Amino acid sequence: MFYRFGHQSFKTIEPAPGFSVRAISGKNVMLCDVALQPHSESPLHSHPYEEMSLIIEGEFDMKIGDEGQLLKPGDVYHVPPGVIHGGVTHEQRTVMVSVFSPPRKDYE
Amino acid sequence: MFYRFGHQSFKTIEPAPGFSVRAISGKNVMLCDVALQPHSESPLHSHPYEEMSLIIEGEFDMKIGDEGQLLKPGDVYHVPPGVIHGGVTHEQRTVMVSVFSPPRKDYE
Repeated sequence: MFYRFGHQSFKTIEPAPGFSVRAISGKNVMLCDVALQPHSESPLHSHPYEEMSLIIEGEFDMKIGDEGQLLKPGDVYHVPPGVIHGGVTHEQRTVMVSVFSPPRKDYE
Repeated sequence: MFYRFGHQSFKTIEPAPGFSVRAISGKNVMLCDVALQPHSESPLHSHPYEEMSLIIEGEFDMKIGDEGQLLKPGDVYHVPPGVIHGGVTHEQRTVMVSVFSPPRKDYE
């Protein structure tokens, strides 16, 4: 059994320019270490996965459904399956930890 | 619908001295912001939840099943349901993000 994953075990994905994701899957959850460069974007999209994220550094100017919020370190957002969401960064590099359940097939 | 949770929305739990957890639940996942003071401990235990964590700051000297590892920032550990695990910090304050699926009833 292999319980620990070092940096090198992650798969790195770049869903959009300046937006990189290191993803690792368990059985029902996928944990992602997400970094967005200043002035980059996670374009509006939806997916069939539940998503929760905690902002670690920077700011994320986010839309979820018809709500808009500027998220800061310590804030958490929750996106139920099927809800349209996306966001942009401004001046700061932004780091967050995101979790998807079940694991996203497009990040595996 | 309420998608965003500020600092104040978290429930804070102290499972052991010097070990604090801010927990927030979705439907199938619970996201936790975990801080351990230097020389503190998450005593060996098991639970029926899948657990994955990403180390953000510090170090976590961990046992999972019969494996021991010193985890550093960027490392991830995975604990399947029912597997005994726990860990200690040494000189440094340690921060990690942990996710449980399904949400832990004892943290709700």
